[in-house]
Amino acid sequence: MAKTKAARKHGILSTPTRPLEIDRRKNVAALLDKMQGVSFQGRNLGVAYQIWRRMLADRVMILMGMSGAMVPAGMRRLVVYLIKNRLIDCLTSTGANFFHDIHESLGRFHFQCSPQIDDVKLQKNLIDRMFDTLADEEEFREADAMIGRFAATLDQSRPYTTREFLHLLGREVSRRAKDDGIVTAAYKAGVPLYCPALGDSSIGIGIAEDRFLGNNRLTFDIVGDVLETARLAADSPASGVIYFGGGTPKNFVNQTEVTATFMRQSHSGHKYALQIVTDAPHWGGLSGCTFAESQSWGKIAHDASTVDVHCDSTIAMPLLVTALSEDAALIRKRKKPVFEMGRELKFTFPE
Amino acid sequence: MAKTKAARKHGILSTPTRPLEIDRRKNVAALLDKMQGVSFQGRNLGVAYQIWRRMLADRVMILMGMSGAMVPAGMRRLVVYLIKNRLIDCLTSTGANFFHDIHESLGRFHFQCSPQIDDVKLQKNLIDRMFDTLADEEEFREADAMIGRFAATLDQSRPYTTREFLHLLGREVSRRAKDDGIVTAAYKAGVPLYCPALGDSSIGIGIAEDRFLGNNRLTFDIVGDVLETARLAADSPASGVIYFGGGTPKNFVNQTEVTATFMRQSHSGHKYALQIVTDAPHWGGLSGCTFAESQSWGKIAHDASTVDVHCDSTIAMPLLVTALSEDAALIRKRKKPVFEMGRELKFTFPE
Amino acid sequence: MAKTKAARKHGILSTPTRPLEIDRRKNVAALLDKMQGVSFQGRNLGVAYQIWRRMLADRVMILMGMSGAMVPAGMRRLVVYLIKNRLIDCLTSTGANFFHDIHESLGRFHFQCSPQIDDVKLQKNLIDRMFDTLADEEEFREADAMIGRFAATLDQSRPYTTREFLHLLGREVSRRAKDDGIVTAAYKAGVPLYCPALGDSSIGIGIAEDRFLGNNRLTFDIVGDVLETARLAADSPASGVIYFGGGTPKNFVNQTEVTATFMRQSHSGHKYALQIVTDAPHWGGLSGCTFAESQSWGKIAHDASTVDVHCDSTIAMPLLVTALSEDAALIRKRKKPVFEMGRELKFTFPE
Amino acid sequence: MAKTKAARKHGILSTPTRPLEIDRRKNVAALLDKMQGVSFQGRNLGVAYQIWRRMLADRVMILMGMSGAMVPAGMRRLVVYLIKNRLIDCLTSTGANFFHDIHESLGRFHFQCSPQIDDVKLQKNLIDRMFDTLADEEEFREADAMIGRFAATLDQSRPYTTREFLHLLGREVSRRAKDDGIVTAAYKAGVPLYCPALGDSSIGIGIAEDRFLGNNRLTFDIVGDVLETARLAADSPASGVIYFGGGTPKNFVNQTEVTATFMRQSHSGHKYALQIVTDAPHWGGLSGCTFAESQSWGKIAHDASTVDVHCDSTIAMPLLVTALSEDAALIRKRKKPVFEMGRELKFTFPE
Repeated sequence: MAKTKAARKHGILSTPTRPLEIDRRKNVAALLDKMQGVSFQGRNLGVAYQIWRRMLADRVMILMGMSGAMVPAGMRRLVVYLIKNRLIDCLTSTGANFFHDIHESLGRFHFQCSPQIDDVKLQKNLIDRMFDTLADEEEFREADAMIGRFAATLDQSRPYTTREFLHLLGREVSRRAKDDGIVTAAYKAGVPLYCPALGDSSIGIGIAEDRFLGNNRLTFDIVGDVLETARLAADSPASGVIYFGGGTPKNFVNQTEVTATFMRQSHSGHKYALQIVTDAPHWGGLSGCTFAESQSWGKIAHDASTVDVHCDSTIAMPLLVTALSEDAALIRKRKKPVFEMGRELKFTFPE
Repeated sequence: MAKTKAARKHGILSTPTRPLEIDRRKNVAALLDKMQGVSFQGRNLGVAYQIWRRMLADRVMILMGMSGAMVPAGMRRLVVYLIKNRLIDCLTSTGANFFHDIHESLGRFHFQCSPQIDDVKLQKNLIDRMFDTLADEEEFREADAMIGRFAATLDQSRPYTTREFLHLLGREVSRRAKDDGIVTAAYKAGVPLYCPALGDSSIGIGIAEDRFLGNNRLTFDIVGDVLETARLAADSPASGVIYFGGGTPKNFVNQTEVTATFMRQSHSGHKYALQIVTDAPHWGGLSGCTFAESQSWGKIAHDASTVDVHCDSTIAMPLLVTALSEDAALIRKRKKPVFEMGRELKFTFPE
Repeated sequence: MAKTKAARKHGILSTPTRPLEIDRRKNVAALLDKMQGVSFQGRNLGVAYQIWRRMLADRVMILMGMSGAMVPAGMRRLVVYLIKNRLIDCLTSTGANFFHDIHESLGRFHFQCSPQIDDVKLQKNLIDRMFDTLADEEEFREADAMIGRFAATLDQSRPYTTREFLHLLGREVSRRAKDDGIVTAAYKAGVPLYCPALGDSSIGIGIAEDRFLGNNRLTFDIVGDVLETARLAADSPASGVIYFGGGTPKNFVNQTEVTATFMRQSHSGHKYALQIVTDAPHWGGLSGCTFAESQSWGKIAHDASTVDVHCDSTIAMPLLVTALSEDAALIRKRKKPVFEMGRELKFTFPE
Repeated sequence: MAKTKAARKHGILSTPTRPLEIDRRKNVAALLDKMQGVSFQGRNLGVAYQIWRRMLADRVMILMGMSGAMVPAGMRRLVVYLIKNRLIDCLTSTGANFFHDIHESLGRFHFQCSPQIDDVKLQKNLIDRMFDTLADEEEFREADAMIGRFAATLDQSRPYTTREFLHLLGREVSRRAKDDGIVTAAYKAGVPLYCPALGDSSIGIGIAEDRFLGNNRLTFDIVGDVLETARLAADSPASGVIYFGGGTPKNFVNQTEVTATFMRQSHSGHKYALQIVTDAPHWGGLSGCTFAESQSWGKIAHDASTVDVHCDSTIAMPLLVTALSEDAALIRKRKKPVFEMGRELKFTFPE
């Protein structure tokens, strides 16, 4: 028998929005909890917090992709926190973020400015701008040269995955670091880093300059990166993805499930997926695409927990990491994979 | 004597970004404090918090504009908090927000949904959608009719400013309200509300329907609104503006300083200005325009404290209001204007 | 019997994208025709062109909403073309656009600049900026004053709809105009203009200043605007809507179908709908909402032809109007409504 | 002596916007010409057309970066036109675009759909979605496998630049192609292609799968790509850049001028630069950054001709390429570089 109209309506109108109230709970975790009951991107950010919490409570490989100038923007220590406390298991990012991280680890700074500053004057003073943030180009060149010299110390007769390279570079930087950064923290914690467009950054430029001078012939095994990251998905009980920004890091982590299909019998897709993006789906690019779209490709499981949050990462990351840090027990009890670094990457999950 | 290159560089590179750190301070106010040291929209949100604090510490008329479906999105109680605790002195918004507020005050709800829900099915069930939020159209029509009947009780021989109308409507709704809302809280607190496009909303539709039935001939004095809001700027020691969203509310509040120029000798412009917008400046519209652009019009003072934050209001408003609520002394000591409602609006500032 | 997998797949993969080719057809209409076969916003723009053509071939009231600084941006003559050649039947816009139109009709100009120009310097020279476009504030004040003086010549004892006011203002400006504009062309063509937030503009400021000086007490009948525009939808065989930008004009035209429901027996919704917007749906506001969402409200018919195009109007409007102008026969044969202006608006459709 | 105020004002208000008029010129080139006189993104698109024309008239290496799913979106033949007619000299893009291009060259199609289609159903039918565009995953796997088999035919003992690899792949695909595509046209025209994140695509997946099966050990010389593209800038009389979309292609082409600084005495920066992007500068990422920001890095010359256009490439590319195609003489007379392919890339400019 057909449902009455009132019953149908009641079925659709089942969950009221919960007007957010100012009360005694003024900590970030409580606020994100309350934000699940509102609408639009506020709700999505609240849901993202819950999905990340559920990932931490599950037995799952957590893969993070990060693009945008997050390190110059002051996000370095938050990412270090994620790595040290193992709220993520693997980070894929741009060469720029790893480069800027090393720059800060070596005791250098990024600086604040107005976005209306005179760029020609900056160039004459050898200062580089990233929207409202500055860096000293001369200091960058020192880091370029350091990376180039380091590249020359590696085995020139065989290619390196970017993961192996960044691990060894982390060891090198650790010896000189004044403050822990992403690359050094990942080295110490045994957490793999990937950089699918390494050439497209100051790390690539530094190594290229050193090759130009005749000092190295280092090559990278980018196909090895593809296989290795696919194994992270294929050989884990399940996988979850977290994207801050789009671009190559998002696509590279997303595609691990596609590559994984020829490595195992059953097809699955990532089980959890949350993204913080500023791009919009209607431009048709990968950076702004929804996880619904990713499901058509099999990148995301049919029954996955997913959320797309439209927000600048410099707002969402401080909120999410602060909120997660409030639940020490959740972090401590996490069943996280243990990696064994080397030319091949190995890992095991605790029971 | 010319500065050396190093000195020039040092002058430009003076304020480092401060990588945000997870520490014991996990409350929202502390986080927004720390966010001033990062970059991009995270920094801007931190600065917005500071500018609002400085407005509260000064002797200034605080005018807020709000657009977007903020009430259905669960922001009603935050705005009520702002009004009751006088973190703002005047609110300009869309008819839709005031209408949805009355709907909730009368004990009705808005509901959560997926943005992918079937809209034709919703229409068949008389359910209205706002992105990921639903409302019962039949309940809306009850509120329409209530507002229409109320309009018929007013003096049909003279026009009402939207401020006077909303004040009287607030009194009427207070009698029936199950929960305090924006319109009732403003009525009780003696805070003026303006609606520069009242016809463009369910309030307008409700009154039009009642006129169509032959019951009212109510008219509005929209030119009176222009003059009255200009006086709020002209006759105050200084003014500050806060925009959540763009559209008519932003422009209407912005233009008060233009109108005010023919009411007083000296020209000034708003002294403080913070906006939370999702629109971008490069489309050339008013919604996305920067406060720098507004300075050319004299709407914003040359030396004003301003910040443009690109963020969804459903994220920024919970953060800002929660953070501000943590400083009870700042709120208590505020030198806020006192309004006297009536056909003319009067107000005085404490010494 | 269940379809085979191949048949199902063939059913979904039925219409290939047609790679756009450079050939002899280099006119705009041919290009928009070809763009229907591509993807993303290019396809949407091609579809918008087709929907507008279908509206012109049907017997339908075409209502246009326009926001953003379209006149300063050089779109005035395109809108004049739409009005004179009756590619639209009614225009709802911001007070700013009507004001800037009068400014240009009186022989004044808007000027080009870089968006990086110094705004404080502009203000000191009494120059107003709209992103990359300038205007002389002193010339604006002349137009303000002219409009104020005109307001004082009207009947102060009864309210005017904005449509009647703009029609009479068009007559007045026609006497002084050096070049035809939107307001004068609409006056001459007998096409109704609406301005649901008239107070929120320099027109409102001009009238307010004149009232401040004690010269007028003009009032507007904004509820009359609501009823009159609802009749445009209710009493036409069908209606179609075209939006350039969002804001109050979009919502006001959209809502005509809601208001119309209490004026007629059967419910319908607009039959055609195309919008050119830069806002995105995920912020939850009306400016970026899709026509799918509008269907839940009954604003758009279930079986309407609709398209959402994400593009700056200053690109889309020149393309669409140029392309439409290439089919003189379509324009000439159109069954367009004929309006009779006056205190009440009347109109008839040809058989 | 100080300028009078009127003279200062006249100096600022020097170039009026030119209201765009419908006239007899209905071809795309004429429209883009007229659009230079309007505002906002319409003006920018008109300026982009002029800058590209000036590049073609100069003696300059034209480097194009392209991201987003441009081939599925029907842009393939436009890019082929650019390559065959040498309106560009070098193309950097994503692996996805090269892969989708090969797919179409082999006689396969992409298909149109609504963006609201059910993604889980698509996945069950092995259909992949890109916003409003579909592809047959089973056909993609055939292309994956073809590329994998091709990789196994190359010299496994030494690394390939992506340019050399794509050139040889173009030769291979030419033998089977049913329709000319980007990769085959570039092969035939001797135009270099680069793919700085080759692993991050179905090309990378195809090669990885083939390695997983034990058939190849192919490696890529991504540092070689960095050096080779830097030489394109360093050894040319001047360089110009054209970006459709952001991401890795934009950054990789932009950085050529940074890398080039250690290859030559004098520092310059690209002389011409136009970009079509949908991202915004205020998010701080590379995709949305302005060319002004790029000047601080020395990537763009101080006196370069630059323009940032905010528009979907599927609208801007058809317009720009159609308009440029109208001037056969400009194209024919161009002083374009001649490339000599091989393990090393050589090129010469005509006098």
